[in-house]
Amino acid sequence: MASSKGKVLLAYSGGLDTSTILAWLIDEGYDVVAFMADVGQEEDFEVARSKALKCGAKDFILEDQKREFITELIYPAVQANAIYEDVYLLGTSLARPVIARGMIDAAAKHGCQYVAHGCTGKGNDQVRFELAFYGLKPDIKVIAPWRDPAFYNRFAGRSALLEYAESKGIPVTQTKSKPWSTDENLFHISYEAGILEDPNTTPPADMWKLTNSPETAPDQGEKVQITFTKGVPTSVKVASTGKEHTDAVDIFFTLNNLARLHGIGRCDIVENRFIGVKSRGCYETPAGTILRAAHIDLEGLTLDREVRRVRDQIVTTKFSEQLYYGMFFTPECKYVRSCIPGSQATVNGTVSLKLYKGNTIVEGRVSQEQLYDEKFSSMDELGGFKPEETTGFIEVNAIRIKRYGVGQAEKGKGGSSLKAAYALE
Amino acid sequence: MASSKGKVLLAYSGGLDTSTILAWLIDEGYDVVAFMADVGQEEDFEVARSKALKCGAKDFILEDQKREFITELIYPAVQANAIYEDVYLLGTSLARPVIARGMIDAAAKHGCQYVAHGCTGKGNDQVRFELAFYGLKPDIKVIAPWRDPAFYNRFAGRSALLEYAESKGIPVTQTKSKPWSTDENLFHISYEAGILEDPNTTPPADMWKLTNSPETAPDQGEKVQITFTKGVPTSVKVASTGKEHTDAVDIFFTLNNLARLHGIGRCDIVENRFIGVKSRGCYETPAGTILRAAHIDLEGLTLDREVRRVRDQIVTTKFSEQLYYGMFFTPECKYVRSCIPGSQATVNGTVSLKLYKGNTIVEGRVSQEQLYDEKFSSMDELGGFKPEETTGFIEVNAIRIKRYGVGQAEKGKGGSSLKAAYALE
Amino acid sequence: MASSKGKVLLAYSGGLDTSTILAWLIDEGYDVVAFMADVGQEEDFEVARSKALKCGAKDFILEDQKREFITELIYPAVQANAIYEDVYLLGTSLARPVIARGMIDAAAKHGCQYVAHGCTGKGNDQVRFELAFYGLKPDIKVIAPWRDPAFYNRFAGRSALLEYAESKGIPVTQTKSKPWSTDENLFHISYEAGILEDPNTTPPADMWKLTNSPETAPDQGEKVQITFTKGVPTSVKVASTGKEHTDAVDIFFTLNNLARLHGIGRCDIVENRFIGVKSRGCYETPAGTILRAAHIDLEGLTLDREVRRVRDQIVTTKFSEQLYYGMFFTPECKYVRSCIPGSQATVNGTVSLKLYKGNTIVEGRVSQEQLYDEKFSSMDELGGFKPEETTGFIEVNAIRIKRYGVGQAEKGKGGSSLKAAYALE
Amino acid sequence: MASSKGKVLLAYSGGLDTSTILAWLIDEGYDVVAFMADVGQEEDFEVARSKALKCGAKDFILEDQKREFITELIYPAVQANAIYEDVYLLGTSLARPVIARGMIDAAAKHGCQYVAHGCTGKGNDQVRFELAFYGLKPDIKVIAPWRDPAFYNRFAGRSALLEYAESKGIPVTQTKSKPWSTDENLFHISYEAGILEDPNTTPPADMWKLTNSPETAPDQGEKVQITFTKGVPTSVKVASTGKEHTDAVDIFFTLNNLARLHGIGRCDIVENRFIGVKSRGCYETPAGTILRAAHIDLEGLTLDREVRRVRDQIVTTKFSEQLYYGMFFTPECKYVRSCIPGSQATVNGTVSLKLYKGNTIVEGRVSQEQLYDEKFSSMDELGGFKPEETTGFIEVNAIRIKRYGVGQAEKGKGGSSLKAAYALE
Repeated sequence: MASSKGKVLLAYSGGLDTSTILAWLIDEGYDVVAFMADVGQEEDFEVARSKALKCGAKDFILEDQKREFITELIYPAVQANAIYEDVYLLGTSLARPVIARGMIDAAAKHGCQYVAHGCTGKGNDQVRFELAFYGLKPDIKVIAPWRDPAFYNRFAGRSALLEYAESKGIPVTQTKSKPWSTDENLFHISYEAGILEDPNTTPPADMWKLTNSPETAPDQGEKVQITFTKGVPTSVKVASTGKEHTDAVDIFFTLNNLARLHGIGRCDIVENRFIGVKSRGCYETPAGTILRAAHIDLEGLTLDREVRRVRDQIVTTKFSEQLYYGMFFTPECKYVRSCIPGSQATVNGTVSLKLYKGNTIVEGRVSQEQLYDEKFSSMDELGGFKPEETTGFIEVNAIRIKRYGVGQAEKGKGGSSLKAAYALE
Repeated sequence: MASSKGKVLLAYSGGLDTSTILAWLIDEGYDVVAFMADVGQEEDFEVARSKALKCGAKDFILEDQKREFITELIYPAVQANAIYEDVYLLGTSLARPVIARGMIDAAAKHGCQYVAHGCTGKGNDQVRFELAFYGLKPDIKVIAPWRDPAFYNRFAGRSALLEYAESKGIPVTQTKSKPWSTDENLFHISYEAGILEDPNTTPPADMWKLTNSPETAPDQGEKVQITFTKGVPTSVKVASTGKEHTDAVDIFFTLNNLARLHGIGRCDIVENRFIGVKSRGCYETPAGTILRAAHIDLEGLTLDREVRRVRDQIVTTKFSEQLYYGMFFTPECKYVRSCIPGSQATVNGTVSLKLYKGNTIVEGRVSQEQLYDEKFSSMDELGGFKPEETTGFIEVNAIRIKRYGVGQAEKGKGGSSLKAAYALE
Repeated sequence: MASSKGKVLLAYSGGLDTSTILAWLIDEGYDVVAFMADVGQEEDFEVARSKALKCGAKDFILEDQKREFITELIYPAVQANAIYEDVYLLGTSLARPVIARGMIDAAAKHGCQYVAHGCTGKGNDQVRFELAFYGLKPDIKVIAPWRDPAFYNRFAGRSALLEYAESKGIPVTQTKSKPWSTDENLFHISYEAGILEDPNTTPPADMWKLTNSPETAPDQGEKVQITFTKGVPTSVKVASTGKEHTDAVDIFFTLNNLARLHGIGRCDIVENRFIGVKSRGCYETPAGTILRAAHIDLEGLTLDREVRRVRDQIVTTKFSEQLYYGMFFTPECKYVRSCIPGSQATVNGTVSLKLYKGNTIVEGRVSQEQLYDEKFSSMDELGGFKPEETTGFIEVNAIRIKRYGVGQAEKGKGGSSLKAAYALE
Repeated sequence: MASSKGKVLLAYSGGLDTSTILAWLIDEGYDVVAFMADVGQEEDFEVARSKALKCGAKDFILEDQKREFITELIYPAVQANAIYEDVYLLGTSLARPVIARGMIDAAAKHGCQYVAHGCTGKGNDQVRFELAFYGLKPDIKVIAPWRDPAFYNRFAGRSALLEYAESKGIPVTQTKSKPWSTDENLFHISYEAGILEDPNTTPPADMWKLTNSPETAPDQGEKVQITFTKGVPTSVKVASTGKEHTDAVDIFFTLNNLARLHGIGRCDIVENRFIGVKSRGCYETPAGTILRAAHIDLEGLTLDREVRRVRDQIVTTKFSEQLYYGMFFTPECKYVRSCIPGSQATVNGTVSLKLYKGNTIVEGRVSQEQLYDEKFSSMDELGGFKPEETTGFIEVNAIRIKRYGVGQAEKGKGGSSLKAAYALE
């Protein structure tokens, strides 16, 4: 073709959808560079490379982003106890900023004016990718074929995709797709759509890919000790092997393997997407589930109560929502992230855990930090302060409460009916 | 003695401490009425009665408060997803307002000017009892012997208590006390103090009283369906028995028995007491653990996202803290409780669960509420809205983010270094 | 025309824009009914009526919504101390739900399938109107010409509008428009756009329409007493007239007139619109400014501290944002509104104020509620509690703080360098 | 006396109370060093020195803490928009940490094992002093005579104090005390107690010391321009003098003088003390009132909306409460303070103000920060984004809201009664 409309960096997965998009973009007059991030998903990257090139890609870029994913995204999330709607550990959300950053870098390097992705028009990922693109490069141009009527009307339904693939000589590896969608990286795998769209359908046993079920996990549990330094895991000791792991990536994969074996990290929820629809998702987050439990436990021992209260309200809640909504490269997320370190200075110590058939059981914790003090806490001895001082504490706390009670009584709600004063109408 | 100093209603447990306090109060010139609340703890109340009377109590009052405990305290906590510091389900905290209310009623009925309790001067329970007393009856007089030097200096150490008991002919049932303290009711049991004061000591296997361990739980799990109406459980169907339970108390005990059998509800944490010391506690909360998981799951399906956000921030966080700090009978707790019903109107439906060796596994949920809609959520079909509308949604959300990026760029932080704009200094 | 595309209810203002839209909608094949809400703006409604009919409207509907605006929107905002970004009292935001509700009712009554408005595509009001329409009638169809390229491309610039008006015989009253836009209702007037878009331009003195400037206000101030019942103003006594006003609308207009005279209620801010751009706005909110000051003052006397803390965090912040973002008819706003009454039960009493040249000066307040108690508060006498009890209160509050200090000292940050422990790095 | 009980550093004010305490401590067997902080209060320090020495003090220490008060306490409070209960600008609260730190330093230098203060047992200041002492030096011993029955029973009432002073030869300067108490520093003066304890008593005109009343302020206003750098004022230009002030202390005093002249900074509230009683206080905070208004205004122009939301929720609210409750030297306040700088990086620019008879009127603002952009904001031109994109934004925001409406309709609350769905029961 004489003149290209420009160069597009496409987030390529190797699957039918993005292969079709790749070929279609070329049809539309673009030059396309295929980009693939290695964030720990199970994938034959060489197969993907040759497929992309076969589809007509000018180039295929594979970026190993595993370490930055762990150290720059996952560990801050551990420090923050990040969780969405009490259940979801944000595995897809955490990978998106890393991949988007890799794409913006690659787009600059390869002279692409456009970035494109294969996300659907109803999900969170389109938002996460695009807001990250715009945050990193406000003038980048985005192509989202699944929101373009020219594309989505033409490729409505799997058969249209298959037919087009055949016409373009694109090899289709899976003749029959699974009745759900997945997104996998080293932190988690998600399952949604298809048969899962009925929230009352129990996921089939063979859906779960990363972890054993609690039922099939070994009868013999495992013991591990995780040491945190300023809230980040810096050592894992495994009882059965006697080995200690200290490299950030090694720590993560060690825990991941143990958790997969012992059936840890599954969940199944109906969550609220950013665009305002509810969505059913199933997830496996093996290492992340252990790390969250261990980190929360150590904070119990080492974090001041009121620091924790403030942090919970602001960092945990906000950072989780920002991640889920795709707001990582925003001023507010930068601000919230700047509030993490101040909360983690004392989160140093070691947590002992037993992993057994889906359970992460805390068995003990120890720290050189001195906020816990047996002398103060002990019920068995005096120490730290005089018991009668607590009387003053209670009496002063009661001033306001008594005053309210007296006021209620004076309004005819007192005496035997004061109890009624606390009944809800 | 010719004239009494007045009449005291004593929160009596039947143990060595409160028996000693009972006798000592009589020594000090008070008439004493012993009060015992049946909140579902395992206890021989008749033994306690005869012991109290033997110690010199003028009367022994046993109040069955199980139903009100479940319906007035536990179920609101379920509606609110109440939890303290991410782990503790507030079993002791929830019982205290019920018992304190029983005591204030009994004190009025029996003409007691004083209420007394056997809580130590370092714990939360003294605060919870006394603030509840003052909230309900601002002019009540409280006697807390463990904060009175005349008492605690005299009875420093177990041998002094035993010696005094012997001198008074008080029967001592346990010659050797367990190396920890417990508080039990139908919702939970707590373990603290003694050997548990070293936070790195793993609790001995024989400490846990209510539940099987995951290891000793049956190899065959159980399936249950819990139906909630406005956030309150109103039916439980048990697969193995085929029975449906609909009475509030029956529901609770049914779940409790299943959870105990299947090893559900243990936890072990270092928590922050109201008085500002850290404390290690182990807990078993069988039914409560299942109910919390099920209720959160159903809210995923039935509660609007933004209602949930507001509720989480205010009701869940505040109500949990108020319960823990003993602030139930306060204006602020009444206010927060008044904010629960507005959040639960749509929380109607049924959750299917599998209980297996410590795991509470959600397998599905269904509701007549219509906030979830497959047509909107489906990735496989158009429906509900046009994909290209999402483009506008993303673009408008990006306005602010792009503007920030442009501003950063103009400050020399743009271009290839825009990524650096999001690095923390 | 033989067959209409359908019937449109148009929010009609009588100005050039909505007159053009009216005529253009007819050109496009719609039947149009013009709707005007009387929310207290200064307007000759008969002139508007004849103009609408002249433009081709099938009907002209004028709805007097002043009372519902005051009692259903403004007074809840007073109860909640609603304010946006510390400055803006939400005058436009508060009127939109009332008008939108009036329109949905009128659309049903007059068989309109469509509603239309003349808001621009960059502002908040388009969002407020449309989200309210959809909340009240999810299947209503909305026409927003200023977001329709067919319209906005044709009518880019005032001259195109004037030319079209001339061609349609639409009378143009103002030959030269003011260099800013306004929105007026009984609660406020806003000024934005035009010369105000430079945020460093001081608004010209003759812009301000409702209030005297502090400089031109009378040298003699006025005294008023406002009585609140459950947080709602139920009486206003004016010193200079000796009159008492008790009707909700009369109260409001009385305060409005006094505030206008005494130069109260102007502000000038750069605010953050919902769509993510910053915008400069100038506002006059005469009565609202007085009511907010008086209500906050009375809450100081009558509202429990902790109830206030919870309310501030949830109701004040959230309700204000919901109003600004046009989220009144949403589940979350209904929820937040349901949390207002529980906070206002004790907000009963009377505040005395002096109004003088822009100042609203609180001079005293009185209430039958009993949360304030001179005996407790007095520095001059013992009463309520023993001073030495405060020692216990302080000591117990210090436990945690001392423990942190000791921990810092043990990390080599103690002694003379403990001060440094509180320095920020 | 042969041997002293130890050495006490006493916070000395020069008044009757602390002079009596000084002499009484010596009677009790202590050596006493009198400490006075110059935090900008109006005081003849030489008179105080000779009085202290005459009372028997071993030494008199005067510490000039004005600059640190302004730069380390007041300016962070300005950055945080700190305010207590919507009204009080925390003048006393802000001075206490500085004075306490001066005392702990002086105690170390002069070998004092004790620190003492003359605060009453019902107020906030005792808590603020003592928690600061303990935070800085956990093992310091505190003497609080007004909470010691031996002292407060002996000196109940002013006549006992006067009699004792006479017996000790302590000169009493004021024969008749004012019918209220004050606390003055460069930031503010407070008035409380005495006749002010009736919250309905209007403060007498001659009470106010620092500021003109709006009525007596000049008829001619003043214009000033305040420049902030990272949220801290770094320049003030005064129109009438043409002078620019750039030193931190000079800036503050310049604004203080202007505000005093123009009647700015008075308030009168009933507030909630930390110990749980309500208290009426009147305050004058001249420069602080101007700085808060100017800082908030500049944030409107320069701070991202969502950064502001997070900051408001956490820093503004928490820091204000921590200051009021005396929690400056605590881990949680250190944490919250660490969250200030991240929010102020862009708060750079200049605000133009007019000061006139109690009013601080914003007239304009300008900044090199680029978050405000006329092109985006302008109503008069297209620019920045396409109007039709807003349709998508609104439609997607409406998904959730429509879905709720449909759900309501299906529950029989729809159609003409959907309006009722938003009515509160």
